[in-house]
Amino acid sequence: MSETHVERRARLMGPNVPTFYRSPVHLVRGEGVWLWDAAGKRYLDCYNNVPHVGHCHPKVVEAIAKQAATLNTHTRYLHDMVLDYLERLLGTFKNGIGQGILTCTGSEANDIALRMAQAATGKTGIIVTDDTYHGNTTAVSQLSARRPQIGERWPNVRLVPAPNSLLRPDPDGTIFAGHVKAAMAELAAAGFGTSALLICPMFANEGLPSLAPGWLAPTEAALRAEGALIIADEVQPGFGRSGSHFWGHERLGFKADIVTMGKPMGNGHPVAAVVTTPEIMASFRNVFSYFNTFGGNPVSAAAAMAVLQVIEEEGLQERAAKSSAYVKDRLEALNHPLIADVRANGLFFAVELRDGDKGATAFSVQLVENMVARGFLMNVIGADRNVLKIRPPMAFDIEHADLLIDALAAALAETKVPA
Amino acid sequence: MSETHVERRARLMGPNVPTFYRSPVHLVRGEGVWLWDAAGKRYLDCYNNVPHVGHCHPKVVEAIAKQAATLNTHTRYLHDMVLDYLERLLGTFKNGIGQGILTCTGSEANDIALRMAQAATGKTGIIVTDDTYHGNTTAVSQLSARRPQIGERWPNVRLVPAPNSLLRPDPDGTIFAGHVKAAMAELAAAGFGTSALLICPMFANEGLPSLAPGWLAPTEAALRAEGALIIADEVQPGFGRSGSHFWGHERLGFKADIVTMGKPMGNGHPVAAVVTTPEIMASFRNVFSYFNTFGGNPVSAAAAMAVLQVIEEEGLQERAAKSSAYVKDRLEALNHPLIADVRANGLFFAVELRDGDKGATAFSVQLVENMVARGFLMNVIGADRNVLKIRPPMAFDIEHADLLIDALAAALAETKVPA
Repeated sequence: MSETHVERRARLMGPNVPTFYRSPVHLVRGEGVWLWDAAGKRYLDCYNNVPHVGHCHPKVVEAIAKQAATLNTHTRYLHDMVLDYLERLLGTFKNGIGQGILTCTGSEANDIALRMAQAATGKTGIIVTDDTYHGNTTAVSQLSARRPQIGERWPNVRLVPAPNSLLRPDPDGTIFAGHVKAAMAELAAAGFGTSALLICPMFANEGLPSLAPGWLAPTEAALRAEGALIIADEVQPGFGRSGSHFWGHERLGFKADIVTMGKPMGNGHPVAAVVTTPEIMASFRNVFSYFNTFGGNPVSAAAAMAVLQVIEEEGLQERAAKSSAYVKDRLEALNHPLIADVRANGLFFAVELRDGDKGATAFSVQLVENMVARGFLMNVIGADRNVLKIRPPMAFDIEHADLLIDALAAALAETKVPA
Repeated sequence: MSETHVERRARLMGPNVPTFYRSPVHLVRGEGVWLWDAAGKRYLDCYNNVPHVGHCHPKVVEAIAKQAATLNTHTRYLHDMVLDYLERLLGTFKNGIGQGILTCTGSEANDIALRMAQAATGKTGIIVTDDTYHGNTTAVSQLSARRPQIGERWPNVRLVPAPNSLLRPDPDGTIFAGHVKAAMAELAAAGFGTSALLICPMFANEGLPSLAPGWLAPTEAALRAEGALIIADEVQPGFGRSGSHFWGHERLGFKADIVTMGKPMGNGHPVAAVVTTPEIMASFRNVFSYFNTFGGNPVSAAAAMAVLQVIEEEGLQERAAKSSAYVKDRLEALNHPLIADVRANGLFFAVELRDGDKGATAFSVQLVENMVARGFLMNVIGADRNVLKIRPPMAFDIEHADLLIDALAAALAETKVPA
């Protein structure tokens, strides 16, 4: 008998390589918000944020192809493209952020951000939430509550309870600030001190809680009082996804000292960045002469530049704002006894499914499977895997929203909890 | 007065961003072994290993453009390209290496390799040489002797004196093995134990010492006796550069338990990998559910596949062997009182310049500047920066070798030590 694709994967990649869905989808083509599998079945992509401006956007493809045919070297030589890109990217920031390092992955960007905060503050403690994920390097994987490390977690890391607007309301953020203050006290007592709080400004992996602008203010005040910094991991919220703002930390309304970004930045091309103030950059670069061979190469910069251009030319941030309101209204109009909460943050939606006191985990997972069978890609988040995660490419529009919600209504009606 | 390119770089990137040469070269176009700067000046690239099969090779550019226009997702969905690539890549290994993880950078690959060795052995000590560089993540930068860390070096890292065939002859490798044994004893006494020795099989950053096949055998025996592993960082030696072998560890003749690779793998596209035995892979993956969003995406896999195809179709490994012998002969025929040693390992050459007991640092640096002025890109390596590093793309051929050596002869004659 011939080897299946999944068997071949296990033979060549080893065990425990993550896939989505009970029967992993075998994709062969993408265009805009659409994907096709090997059997020709079409899917509406309601999940992937990497193809930010749409799968295989022709302007991004052209930028990559043209630059790859012209020159691809590294930043030990001078090249205009990386500077033109940084100029444009940094122009989207306020509050003193004015310099950047281009890397290849968000993990590399966060790995640098941690060292920047440590170099700038002279302290080593790091605070994150207890239901987050910021990347896969040795250092950054220490921050993940979900994935165990090789060995013990580093003693300079503290996890604080993630905000949960449905189950643990904290409307003015004082409860969260209290957790952060307690962690700071622990880190001070242990001799590490606090270098930074690292958060995703929409707490995407934590379940996308509804948080009002200013919610982080008490936390920010506590951090500032001890000279600690805030790192905003904009890998998910950034590049206009929130609709109202280009960056998630602007929407939540706090000052980010260091900002990291990744996935959507090159529409799938491996490019990421960490940006900060000249002062923090200098404290890092004067100690550590960082160089990344592929980081900021002309092709990566061209891909990232094309993404910024398309966001502007096609008005994708404005479209996200418009689609956001429309999708949220339609999600709230869905009628199903397990829907406990609908949350939106621009083109990112969370539908929490609960059965009384408990997360409706089995139902949620089955609902996603039924949506995939109907040709709609999405997934679940949250510690209980009971929150639908809907986070389509920014090319997603009203017409796609209607297809999605109509299918979701039908799938909700047909889904039974597996016996 | 308008801002210069270098000033603009400093404004957008911060201080201490490394460049090559006294007047950094501003490149705008590349083709094969040739590069052009913004003023139209042409350079023979005798330095860059990233554009392995030649700058902007049309087959690699086409593979990238075609796949980028078709689909670019990640390995949570099934896709053939990453498996086809792994199948072909793993087919180049012997000694049980049969599974791999694709990442975006060699740093990410080494960061995983360290954790693999720790997961497989249950020990945490790492041994490297005292004049090496394996990457830029928090964990991997601990291994660099040259670049200070943020904070103290981790206590589980031991640096051993790098081999130096000219100044500290060690023909059968027993001296190096003695250093490694002493480091193992220290790591055992400190309670870490030794998980692995991590080396570049051609000790490229250390100055490319001349080492006979089997040179590592006493070291390997010492490591095996305590269950420690060997990680081969093939970022520089790999993909046929040595001419005689496809991988550097094959040429030196030792068994690598884990192999990492990067720069040349995608001809400049950000793709890298770590490969190992199924047993070691399982010890890692059963503890840590590693996922890398961009790692092994269809475009990166297509770029890497095209590189393997071009190496084979154009006989680049065989060409490297032929050019290697020719260049070495011509380098050895150069007549200059400061040339103390000429070393070759395939298409990688080191010319050591010494003034009696001392490395001729100032002369070497000036010689490189003069070669750049003549239109030949190269650089210096070694702790004293007195070793010419000549490491051209694999498209380098006899005709280019003649241009290079003729220019080097002239530059050697004209170079005076700066006052």
